[in-house]
Amino acid sequence: MSNTFGHIFRVTTFGESHCKAVGAVVDGCPPRMELSEGDIQPQLNRRRPGQNDITTPRQEKDCVILLSGVENGLTLGTPIAMMVENQDQRPGDYQEINRVPRPSHADYTVQIKYGIRTASGGGRASARETVGRVAAGAVAEKILKNNWGVEIVAWVSQVGDVAAPDLSDSNVTREMVDQLPVRCPDHESAERMAKVINEVKIAKDSVGGIVTCICRQIPAGWGEPVFGKLDARLAQAMLSIPAVKGFEVGSGFQAAAMRGSQHNDLFIQKGDRLGTITNNSGGIQGGISNGEPIVFRVAFKPAATLGQPQKTVDFNGKETILNARGRHDPCVVPRAVPVVESMAALVLVDCGLYQRVIQ
Amino acid sequence: MSNTFGHIFRVTTFGESHCKAVGAVVDGCPPRMELSEGDIQPQLNRRRPGQNDITTPRQEKDCVILLSGVENGLTLGTPIAMMVENQDQRPGDYQEINRVPRPSHADYTVQIKYGIRTASGGGRASARETVGRVAAGAVAEKILKNNWGVEIVAWVSQVGDVAAPDLSDSNVTREMVDQLPVRCPDHESAERMAKVINEVKIAKDSVGGIVTCICRQIPAGWGEPVFGKLDARLAQAMLSIPAVKGFEVGSGFQAAAMRGSQHNDLFIQKGDRLGTITNNSGGIQGGISNGEPIVFRVAFKPAATLGQPQKTVDFNGKETILNARGRHDPCVVPRAVPVVESMAALVLVDCGLYQRVIQ
Amino acid sequence: MSNTFGHIFRVTTFGESHCKAVGAVVDGCPPRMELSEGDIQPQLNRRRPGQNDITTPRQEKDCVILLSGVENGLTLGTPIAMMVENQDQRPGDYQEINRVPRPSHADYTVQIKYGIRTASGGGRASARETVGRVAAGAVAEKILKNNWGVEIVAWVSQVGDVAAPDLSDSNVTREMVDQLPVRCPDHESAERMAKVINEVKIAKDSVGGIVTCICRQIPAGWGEPVFGKLDARLAQAMLSIPAVKGFEVGSGFQAAAMRGSQHNDLFIQKGDRLGTITNNSGGIQGGISNGEPIVFRVAFKPAATLGQPQKTVDFNGKETILNARGRHDPCVVPRAVPVVESMAALVLVDCGLYQRVIQ
Amino acid sequence: MSNTFGHIFRVTTFGESHCKAVGAVVDGCPPRMELSEGDIQPQLNRRRPGQNDITTPRQEKDCVILLSGVENGLTLGTPIAMMVENQDQRPGDYQEINRVPRPSHADYTVQIKYGIRTASGGGRASARETVGRVAAGAVAEKILKNNWGVEIVAWVSQVGDVAAPDLSDSNVTREMVDQLPVRCPDHESAERMAKVINEVKIAKDSVGGIVTCICRQIPAGWGEPVFGKLDARLAQAMLSIPAVKGFEVGSGFQAAAMRGSQHNDLFIQKGDRLGTITNNSGGIQGGISNGEPIVFRVAFKPAATLGQPQKTVDFNGKETILNARGRHDPCVVPRAVPVVESMAALVLVDCGLYQRVIQ
Repeated sequence: MSNTFGHIFRVTTFGESHCKAVGAVVDGCPPRMELSEGDIQPQLNRRRPGQNDITTPRQEKDCVILLSGVENGLTLGTPIAMMVENQDQRPGDYQEINRVPRPSHADYTVQIKYGIRTASGGGRASARETVGRVAAGAVAEKILKNNWGVEIVAWVSQVGDVAAPDLSDSNVTREMVDQLPVRCPDHESAERMAKVINEVKIAKDSVGGIVTCICRQIPAGWGEPVFGKLDARLAQAMLSIPAVKGFEVGSGFQAAAMRGSQHNDLFIQKGDRLGTITNNSGGIQGGISNGEPIVFRVAFKPAATLGQPQKTVDFNGKETILNARGRHDPCVVPRAVPVVESMAALVLVDCGLYQRVIQ
Repeated sequence: MSNTFGHIFRVTTFGESHCKAVGAVVDGCPPRMELSEGDIQPQLNRRRPGQNDITTPRQEKDCVILLSGVENGLTLGTPIAMMVENQDQRPGDYQEINRVPRPSHADYTVQIKYGIRTASGGGRASARETVGRVAAGAVAEKILKNNWGVEIVAWVSQVGDVAAPDLSDSNVTREMVDQLPVRCPDHESAERMAKVINEVKIAKDSVGGIVTCICRQIPAGWGEPVFGKLDARLAQAMLSIPAVKGFEVGSGFQAAAMRGSQHNDLFIQKGDRLGTITNNSGGIQGGISNGEPIVFRVAFKPAATLGQPQKTVDFNGKETILNARGRHDPCVVPRAVPVVESMAALVLVDCGLYQRVIQ
Repeated sequence: MSNTFGHIFRVTTFGESHCKAVGAVVDGCPPRMELSEGDIQPQLNRRRPGQNDITTPRQEKDCVILLSGVENGLTLGTPIAMMVENQDQRPGDYQEINRVPRPSHADYTVQIKYGIRTASGGGRASARETVGRVAAGAVAEKILKNNWGVEIVAWVSQVGDVAAPDLSDSNVTREMVDQLPVRCPDHESAERMAKVINEVKIAKDSVGGIVTCICRQIPAGWGEPVFGKLDARLAQAMLSIPAVKGFEVGSGFQAAAMRGSQHNDLFIQKGDRLGTITNNSGGIQGGISNGEPIVFRVAFKPAATLGQPQKTVDFNGKETILNARGRHDPCVVPRAVPVVESMAALVLVDCGLYQRVIQ
Repeated sequence: MSNTFGHIFRVTTFGESHCKAVGAVVDGCPPRMELSEGDIQPQLNRRRPGQNDITTPRQEKDCVILLSGVENGLTLGTPIAMMVENQDQRPGDYQEINRVPRPSHADYTVQIKYGIRTASGGGRASARETVGRVAAGAVAEKILKNNWGVEIVAWVSQVGDVAAPDLSDSNVTREMVDQLPVRCPDHESAERMAKVINEVKIAKDSVGGIVTCICRQIPAGWGEPVFGKLDARLAQAMLSIPAVKGFEVGSGFQAAAMRGSQHNDLFIQKGDRLGTITNNSGGIQGGISNGEPIVFRVAFKPAATLGQPQKTVDFNGKETILNARGRHDPCVVPRAVPVVESMAALVLVDCGLYQRVIQ
C-alpha cells in the first residue's frame, strides 16, 4: 500500500539511508523501448546533494545499476529493477536522535507506528528514498516523450518570501532552470533567493519555498472522472514528497476569491482541436486533461533539521536541548525540482497507458 | 481504478445524474457494528441541495436504501450496498450542451475521453456522484467514532474575498457549523459571506471559497511513510471532489515563506503522550499522524454553470453564445462541507483499520 | 479484497440470500457498447434454480435491473450497477442452523471469522452470491464477443461416477448443452447422469460432478508470465465458485504420469499463425494464451445440505442430530455451468483489455 | 498486475535468467522481527539446481543479499529488497531458439505478447524467476511460525505413474522429505520414483509428477468468502508456478464421484474447538480455514526442454528439427517442493495479517 505507486505503470521503491542500497522496481514498462543507465543517471545527478554550495555537503555518487528488465539495450516488458548503492552504510552522526525525537521530523511518528526506527531517524521518511522515485520517473519520462512528446519542466518559483513572476505561460526549459543553482529561471529572482538561502545558512536555519511545474503536450482525455482525477493523483503524488505542505492546480487557492464569469476558461478553436483562452483549469477539467498545459504548484516547508539548538523534550517527555549534528540543507527546494518532475511523470505515464484500454 | 477508493475499507461509487440510482458499495466494513439508514441519512440531508435559499432550488429527496451487508441491524462484514434513487430520470434542460461544451465543465473532456457522454453533460463528473461518497463516509465515520472517538468537523472559512478568522484551534462542532446556511461558525463572517453569495446570485454569477476541516482524536501512527502518506491520501481525496483546485495541510502554502526555527513544532509532554506546542505540521509528520488534530484546507473554484450568457465555441469550433438553463448553485461551498468530511472519513478509516495489521 | 475481481474490468458483487438485493458493480467496461437488460437476463435464467425437476424447487425470478452506466442503450464508460431483488427477504427455514453448524458448509467458518453470520447460514458463501457474477459475466462476454469473437461454452462432463467422453475437441455449443436439463451434450451420458441424480434425490443425498469449459477464439498473447498467468487466474476464478474442489487445464493431473516427448505440443503452421498439433497445454503456455482453444475442467463436491439427518455437534460441541429443512439441489453441477462460463469471461476480458496497454 | 502478489504482504519479484540479478521486494512485513540472510538461504538452497544427480548439472550459488528493510537484525516495517546475483549473465546455449520456438515452452507466447523475448527464451517464464518467490516465502514462513506456529510441508507424492500412499494424515516433516533426493518421504515409493527419473534421463526425456502440501496450525477464520477464498488464492498461487497443470484441495477431483453423505465432514469437539472427523474439505469450508490441516495437491507436467530432437516448425512456420542444447532437469518436481511451500506461505501470511483487520 505504502511503497508502490501506480496501477498500470507500477513503481515499488525500497531502501533506507544506511542499508546496502536504495532503488525501485518498475512493473508495467512497455517492451521494446531503448533503455540504459544513461537515460536514468541525469535526473539522479540533478537530485543528488552536494552539487553546489547551497545544498548539503554530503557527497553521494548515486550511480544507478539496472538489475533486470533490459536485454541488449531494449526493455523486455518485464520488471525493471534499479539499484543505487549507499556509499555510507554506517550511521554515526545520529546518536542523539535515539534519545530525542527531532521536532517536525518523522522520528516520533515512525517510532509510534512501528515500535522501531532506523538509527538515522525516519528511515523511509528520509529524502534518500526519493532516489527510487527519480530513477523510475526517468523511465516514465522516456515513455511519455517517445509516445506523446510530453515535456515536464519544474522550477523554483518561491524561496522564503521571494516569489518569482509567473512563468507558467512561458517556454521555460530544464536548461534554463539549471543555469543557476537555485533553479529559478528568472535570474533576478534567483539572485534574491540565493541571498535568502545564504542568510539562512549563516543563521543555521532553513527556509521553505514553492516549486511550479508545467507539463506540455498532454493529450486531452487522460485521467479518470471520480477518485482517479488527474489532479487528485498529482496531489497525492506531490504530497507524498517529503516536506510538502500544499498543492494547487491552475488557479488554485486564488480560485476561492474569484467569480465564475472570471474563472471560466472559454473555448476557442486552436488548430484542429478546441482549446481555452485562459487556463485557470490548469489543463484539467473534471479530472481529465483538456489538451492545455498542466500547471501546478507545490509548497515545501523549511527543512526540519537545523544547525541551531532546539528546546524540546526527549522520548520520555523530559525537557532537553537538541543539538542536531546531521548534515542538512538550508533549502531543499532546488533539489526537489527533479523529484516533482519525476512524480508528475509517474502519474502521467500511468494515465496515458491506461487510456489505451478505453480507446 | 477510477471509481473505487481505499485499500482496506474500499468504496465503489456508481451512478449518473439521470440514471435509476446513485450509490456505493462499501467493502471491508468490520462486522457486528450497529448500522441502519438512520446513521447515513443525516449527512445525505446536509449534502442535499435545496436546503435553503442560497443553494440550488432543485429538490432531491435522497433517501438511502441499504441493499445488503446488514441483518437485524448489525453489519455482517459483507459488502454494504447503498442506493439513492434518482427522482428525476428524464433530462430535459440540457439540449444545448449537446452542441456546446460548457466552459470549465467536464463536457468536453468526457467527450474526448470516452467518445460519449450523458445527456446532462459530464455524468460522473456531476456533484450528484458525491451522494455515494457521503453515504459511505457516514459508515466510515461511525467506525471511527466507535473505535477511536474520532471527530471530523468541516466548515466554510472563505467565500469570495471574505475570509473568516482562523478557528482551527477552537472547538467548532457540526451544530455550530449548521447554525447558519452558509456553514461558517463565525457569524460575523457568515453574514458577509451570505451577502457575497446573494450579490453573485443576482448577478447570475458564481463564487468560490475555502473549506477548513479538522479531525480530532486521531491516534498517532496512522498513515504510511512513502506514497501512502496520510496527507497525500487526504490530498487525493480532496482534489477528487468536483471543483476543488487546492489542498494544504497545517501551515500549507504559508510554510514556503517560513524559517525552520519558526516552523518546527517543538515537543512537550501532553498527559501520557508527547505533543507539540504549535501545529504547523497539521497533525501529520512524515506522512504519519502525531496525535495532534489534523487540520487542512480545501480551495473550491466558483461553479462553472452560470445564469449569464458566455461567448464560447461549439464542439465544431464555431463561435456561439451559451445560455445555460440548468439549475445551478451560486456557491457550492456550503454543500461541500459534508463531502469534505466524508472523504476525510474514508481516508482515515482506511488508515486506522490498516494500522491493526502492523501492531 | 474479497468482493472485487479483476484489475481493468473490475467486478464488485454484493448481497446475501435474504437482504433486499444481490448484484454487482462493473467498473471498467468500455464506452459506446450497446447494452440492455436483455443482454444479461439469459445467463441469469440459465443460472436460476427451479428450471426443471432435477434442481431445487425454490422459485426465483431474478430479473436484473440496470441502475447506472448505460444511457440510451449505450455504455458510458462509467460503473454499471446491476441489481436483482431478493423475492424472499424473510428467512424462516433456518432456525436450527443457528444452533448447529451444517457439516461442510460455511456456517462454522463464517461465525469464527466474523463473530456473526446471516440467519440463513454462510450468507455470502451461498450460491445466491453468484447472481452478481453471472450478471457481470454477461457484460464481459458481450465485450469479448464484439471485440474478438470469443466463444465460451461449458458443460457437465461428469456426475458421480458417470463420465462423458471427452468433447473438448468438438464444436459443442450452448444450444447443444441446454438440450437436456443435466447439461451434458452427450445424450447417452446425460441419461445416465440424470438417473444418478434421481437416485440421489430419492435417497435424500447429493452428488458431485465435473464441468468442462472451452474458450474459443482467444488471441495469442493474453495473460501475464508470472503471478497473473492466465491459467492461474482461471484457477482462482473457478475455486472461488462455491463447492469447487479442483481445477485442471489441458492435460491437467494426467500430465503427472506423462513423458515430455508425449506431452509437448509440437508446432505446425495453421493458416497465418503457428498452432500446435496436440493441445496438452490447454491453450496456454507459460501463462499466456497461444491461440489454441483454452480447455479446463472444474471439480464440484456434492452439495453439503442434505435431506437426511446427520450426526454432528452443535456450536457448543454437544452431540446432536441435524435435520436440515432448507431447500437443496441433489446436484448443483448443471446450474454451475453458466457460473463457470461467467467467471471465465471475467478473467478473459480483464486480460484482453489489459493487453491493449502493452501493444 | 503480473509481478506482484498479495494485498497486505505484497511481493514483487524481478529478474530474468541472464540479467544481473533476480530477487524480490517484500512490502508489508511487520516490524521488529529478527531477520537475516540465514533465515532465507536454506529454502533457496533447497530450490537450487545441481543438488544431486537427478537434477540439472547447472551450478548456481544463489546467495541472497538483503538490500534493505532490516537494521541491526530487525525488520523495520519497510520494504525488504532481496537480491540473488546471476552467476551466468552471458547466454550462449540458446541460439537455436531464436529461430525455433521450443514446443510447450513460453518462447512463442512471450514473443507474440511482447514482440520481444530474452535470448534464453521465455525470460520471466523461466524457473529462475522462482528465486524471488522462495526468498519472499522464507520471510513469510518466519512470520507464520512466530505468530501462529504454522508449519508448511510439501513432498513429491507422484512421479510418472508411481504414486506414493496418501500421507496427508501423517506427521511428515521437511527433514523426512529431504532424506532422499526425490523428496518423497515414503522410501519404497521414492526408490521407484528415482528409477523412473533415471530411465527418463537415459532416454533424454522428462517426466511429470505431483506435489502434496500440508499446512498445519492454521487458525480457523483465514480467507475471504467470495473471490478471495483461501483455496482460490492457493489455486492461483500454485498455477502461477511454472509447469503446473492442476490443483485440488481436500477431496479434489475425487469429490465429483462422491455422495454428500459420504463427503460431508461431520463436526466433533476437539479440545477447545470444533473439529471435523474427516477432512474432505482440506481444512477450508466456504473459502475460510476451519482449523483442520490444509491439504492440497499440485500437478506438474513433464519439463518441456528435452535432450532428444523434436520435429516442429520455426517462427516462420517452416518444418525443422529442434535439437535443444540447454541444460534441463529430467524431473523438476523435487525442486518444486520449496516453491510450492513458498507460494503457500505467501498466501497464508497475507490472509493471516489481513484477519487482524477484522478482529
